[in-house]
Amino acid sequence: MPAPRPPLIDGLQFCNWSRAIFEQMHQAGMTAVHVTVAYHEGFRPTVDRIVEWQWRLREHADLIAPGNSAADLAAAEATGRTAIVFGLQNPLPIEDDLGLVDVLSRLGIRFMQLTYNNQSLLGCGWMEPEDSGVTTMGRAVIREMNRCGMVVDLSHSGERTTLDAIAASHRPVTVSHANPQSWKATLRNKSDKVLRALAESGGILGLSLYPVHLADGPDTTLASLCEMAARTAELVGVQNLGIGSDLCQNQPDSVLEWMRVGRWTRLPPGTPGPKFQAQPVWFRSNLDFPGLATGLRAAGFAPDEVAGILGGNWRRFMAESFAPDPSA
Amino acid sequence: MPAPRPPLIDGLQFCNWSRAIFEQMHQAGMTAVHVTVAYHEGFRPTVDRIVEWQWRLREHADLIAPGNSAADLAAAEATGRTAIVFGLQNPLPIEDDLGLVDVLSRLGIRFMQLTYNNQSLLGCGWMEPEDSGVTTMGRAVIREMNRCGMVVDLSHSGERTTLDAIAASHRPVTVSHANPQSWKATLRNKSDKVLRALAESGGILGLSLYPVHLADGPDTTLASLCEMAARTAELVGVQNLGIGSDLCQNQPDSVLEWMRVGRWTRLPPGTPGPKFQAQPVWFRSNLDFPGLATGLRAAGFAPDEVAGILGGNWRRFMAESFAPDPSA
Repeated sequence: MPAPRPPLIDGLQFCNWSRAIFEQMHQAGMTAVHVTVAYHEGFRPTVDRIVEWQWRLREHADLIAPGNSAADLAAAEATGRTAIVFGLQNPLPIEDDLGLVDVLSRLGIRFMQLTYNNQSLLGCGWMEPEDSGVTTMGRAVIREMNRCGMVVDLSHSGERTTLDAIAASHRPVTVSHANPQSWKATLRNKSDKVLRALAESGGILGLSLYPVHLADGPDTTLASLCEMAARTAELVGVQNLGIGSDLCQNQPDSVLEWMRVGRWTRLPPGTPGPKFQAQPVWFRSNLDFPGLATGLRAAGFAPDEVAGILGGNWRRFMAESFAPDPSA
Repeated sequence: MPAPRPPLIDGLQFCNWSRAIFEQMHQAGMTAVHVTVAYHEGFRPTVDRIVEWQWRLREHADLIAPGNSAADLAAAEATGRTAIVFGLQNPLPIEDDLGLVDVLSRLGIRFMQLTYNNQSLLGCGWMEPEDSGVTTMGRAVIREMNRCGMVVDLSHSGERTTLDAIAASHRPVTVSHANPQSWKATLRNKSDKVLRALAESGGILGLSLYPVHLADGPDTTLASLCEMAARTAELVGVQNLGIGSDLCQNQPDSVLEWMRVGRWTRLPPGTPGPKFQAQPVWFRSNLDFPGLATGLRAAGFAPDEVAGILGGNWRRFMAESFAPDPSA
């Protein structure tokens, strides 16, 4: 009997979803992908986005399947489909209503960022000049997320909010898509202090493949990424490393403007909108995901370590994190 | 080993919920109660009502428990708590959005009436002068309810809509709270033709204990109700009979006005609002539920038939009906 194929899991994507992309996931053998359901949407439009996903799951049931629980992940894997895990990059969908954590959890949301780039009701994003940490509502929401089995994601949070949240959460948290600041100096990436605290809590860092987070932007080599991964593994432990590619395949530039400014501000008149940078040549779609293994092996990772980084660590973390914990 | 106690299930209540009422349910040994979550609420306020129920379920977890599935019902029974089954008396909460059937199903809604008293987007209530039957959207919603495991409830629907829906549904439907028109002549009760069609489909009739639906209003005797039950059992088969008391304990009269007029009309200025009639003396709270057995036995029902009417039939129906059916 051949050994079971190790899982391949991407800890974040926000593509312009289509059957063609689901076919690429399938061809690549992706076990699961955490997909962003909403950025700046309030509750009601988020429900619309979830409904759209439910129709997609029915329409493309030969390729993708729900990824709400450990059982779902196992079922998708057993049937050779990609489990789709829902997440929010911003807590706006819960508005100012603690009860909506439970509601959105029941609708399948398994990850929620406490903040996007700026101040939220729960904490502070990395782009604010002042980070006052996790708010009073933020602490109540973290407790409720712990209870529901919704993972606290700190990818876009500021340093103080991130450290506060790691300490406040009774269950391991994640930075689903970011890199070390020591490799690419941007506050969007994470300091060694944060990465150490994340690892000590049992959380996962998903290494980002998004050009803005990479040392040399679109020209970053796979070798450079994987050397960084090796150094980061020494800092956080290889069992706490995964991939969160932040792949935004086929998205128009208008989506980038929506991500940046939502409705909360406006670009000054005449300002050109932001544009997506090109992806590095070695990661343009899910088809390139399995090939990351070559780079990781060349950087000195053992085969079981490569398997952990490309999916095993996320699978363990997701299976543990997605179950409700009534005692939390 | 003593035989397990037969289940006690009420197929509809809309009380002014309080710990005192949950304690009465517990004292009576109620296995499950279908509770009305919304009448004239749109989607967003319905979510607020569901959130209120989630807090109630946590606050009173020693007395009540979720009743979303056969497994939930069994778990509540095993722990001596009353399973709370969520239902809607009106399809307004799904607005004009087919996707919200799935969403509300995931939030625990297990019963939905196609209509309240008047015209809905899905069909026609018993108070309209003309009943044009199940609409085009109604047919799509029935199909989706069948898929999700949300029971089609026709208690307040007009004759034609009720017959159309029984024929359109691939799974058994219910009239959760009504009586035969032959006993109390009101269009809110059901004709023999409807009752026969309901039974042929495998559906359940929950006999109502609400004064307006009773032959002699508040003065109706338990003996009269149970004699009617015996005649109805001959018509529909005893296995298709249950209780749906429509108990509105402790509700102020203002709630009755809300039920009748919602926001869709207004009472003419100066018109006194409707008032609740008194309950019959033999059914004023859940504490009186087990005592219905005495009347049923006196009317000639065998012990296993009594057990079926007071809970066994609902339990079988709920366990079969609440599971999703992806092939529907």
